Amino acid sequence: MDLNKLLKQKNEWLSGIGPDSDIVISSRVRLARNLQKMPFPHRDTTQDNIEIMHAICAVIKKSRFFNKGTILFLDSCSDLDKQLLLERHLISKELLLTRAGSAVAIDESLGLSIMINEEDHLRLQILKSGFQLKECWEILDAVDTEIGNKLDYAYTPVFGYLTSCPTNVGTGMRASVMLHLPGLVMMDLINKVMHAVIKLGMTVRGFYGEGSEFLGNLFQISNQVTLGKDENEILSNIKKVLDLVVEHERNSRLMMQSKNEEKLRDQIGRAYGILANAHLISSKETLGLLSALRMGIDLKYVKNINKRCINELYIATQPAHLQKQTGKLLEPERRDAIRAELIRNYLHNDAQKNKP
Amino acid sequence: MDLNKLLKQKNEWLSGIGPDSDIVISSRVRLARNLQKMPFPHRDTTQDNIEIMHAICAVIKKSRFFNKGTILFLDSCSDLDKQLLLERHLISKELLLTRAGSAVAIDESLGLSIMINEEDHLRLQILKSGFQLKECWEILDAVDTEIGNKLDYAYTPVFGYLTSCPTNVGTGMRASVMLHLPGLVMMDLINKVMHAVIKLGMTVRGFYGEGSEFLGNLFQISNQVTLGKDENEILSNIKKVLDLVVEHERNSRLMMQSKNEEKLRDQIGRAYGILANAHLISSKETLGLLSALRMGIDLKYVKNINKRCINELYIATQPAHLQKQTGKLLEPERRDAIRAELIRNYLHNDAQKNKP
Repeated sequence: MDLNKLLKQKNEWLSGIGPDSDIVISSRVRLARNLQKMPFPHRDTTQDNIEIMHAICAVIKKSRFFNKGTILFLDSCSDLDKQLLLERHLISKELLLTRAGSAVAIDESLGLSIMINEEDHLRLQILKSGFQLKECWEILDAVDTEIGNKLDYAYTPVFGYLTSCPTNVGTGMRASVMLHLPGLVMMDLINKVMHAVIKLGMTVRGFYGEGSEFLGNLFQISNQVTLGKDENEILSNIKKVLDLVVEHERNSRLMMQSKNEEKLRDQIGRAYGILANAHLISSKETLGLLSALRMGIDLKYVKNINKRCINELYIATQPAHLQKQTGKLLEPERRDAIRAELIRNYLHNDAQKNKP
Repeated sequence: MDLNKLLKQKNEWLSGIGPDSDIVISSRVRLARNLQKMPFPHRDTTQDNIEIMHAICAVIKKSRFFNKGTILFLDSCSDLDKQLLLERHLISKELLLTRAGSAVAIDESLGLSIMINEEDHLRLQILKSGFQLKECWEILDAVDTEIGNKLDYAYTPVFGYLTSCPTNVGTGMRASVMLHLPGLVMMDLINKVMHAVIKLGMTVRGFYGEGSEFLGNLFQISNQVTLGKDENEILSNIKKVLDLVVEHERNSRLMMQSKNEEKLRDQIGRAYGILANAHLISSKETLGLLSALRMGIDLKYVKNINKRCINELYIATQPAHLQKQTGKLLEPERRDAIRAELIRNYLHNDAQKNKP
């Protein structure tokens, strides 16, 4: 697959049109699976790895879900390309450190990918826009069933699916949503709400995954436990927590509007003005300003920019995307200039398209 | 005169098209004159004041320079109107504290005004765009000659014109230029240059006159001495100093461009973005951002905004102008909102006009 094509593809999960997309940017479900009778990753040999990869690839190639897809072998990918796949949420950090036999099967149109020889033999995942965990699960379940029928998964009736890390044993499922919570942050309620979320059995991460800061008011919430519950229970638990967070965020935004609307408009206007006119901008500042602008769109203060544009900028302004786009490795200072140019062009083009 | 009309008038001195207008915003010459055999202001009685005012007004009314002009009696002006005249550089701070018999004759089309019963009986002044001190003096000299022929000026062959304050004795002339010096400020050379300017016999003030901060990188330079030199000497002295300052400023701008052009473009772009999109803005922040934008126009980075627009905003964003425009007294917080709206509209309209 030509990764340059990947750069240009319109992803459904970035479209900004899914349910609750004023707050929920995207939903993701992933399943961890391993093959029976084969050593689990980290304990297998290079020979094992390659054998496992071939077995899995052979099945994927015949899958009806991947007929427009492609398979990438990570040991033949450059570091930049791997970084690109990571930024696009198609592979995990684990796969940056390539071992022999690591691969990823991608069907971008579906937002579907399967990592091979990551922490587990298979990691199946799907992304959709807005709050669509149930829809994600339905597709992924079908993919998993089709592939599982042709591969011998490690499974016991007592524990369920067996995985490398005990936290994934059981359903092997992790369901997560990426949330935009500027209201809770600005009203200084975010810590209180996130503590409640964690108490309800969820894990909270930043935009760049585990250990990352909460830049751009972006919060990723996922289930902590996969054992002892079936998939629908997990999804319904997340939904309950999410409904709570969404309600609090909407209330916070209303409070901000009634408290000092002019200040809010000012903040949003300035964010737009800087993004549309800066010539040097860091990724950290970008995420902060995009947050204000995204809220401006939600509150209908900003009418000439689409949410898709913001969502795409989250991805396109990251280092590997910038470097892939310009076709060369860039020093951080140069990246800040290229990033600023890209943002100016994105916003200008989007504003032209949305002219009244 | 309807002061609302004043708000809408296009002043030549704000046009931004005079010589050296990349650096010299405007030139101003004023003459201090007093009537013989009448007590000078501060020593005269109300009766004297009124008598003096009538005598002067009678002459001005017949002047060919004021045939489109008007006379305003300051004791019948509201505080807001007086503040408006001050912001427009038509009266001095002194005239805010009205005494009986204070007045100002204005011919806006010429940028000409005569204050009556300020510190002196007459203060004649003229403003022109860019570096035009000589042109200012030529017109003002003609005005002064015409009026002086009909009034008996206090004058002695030894001292020249007599004035209330000894610093004005002699020619009674003060010539000043308003300079925009962002290059010298950013390259940290401004103190050095201003010390040299002062050593060469000049006075340096800020945008709002004596004692005001140097907001917006605006510096007003004027002659210190009026005694012992004729008018042409004074003007040629100022010109020498000014040529020096202009050269240093141009060099500083070139240095900035060659040193880090991207950072400069970034600063200018952000200034434009904020001015064109903010919803709350103080007058101090406004002057700072207008400075960057003005430099952007001079360096041809900004092509859709005219310098006239920036110059007019210097005036239009001041408190009395904002309040006159909205027709009511405003709290500072409301002013910040109205100021932001006014700036957005000015820049939007100017950009529309200058569309390629």
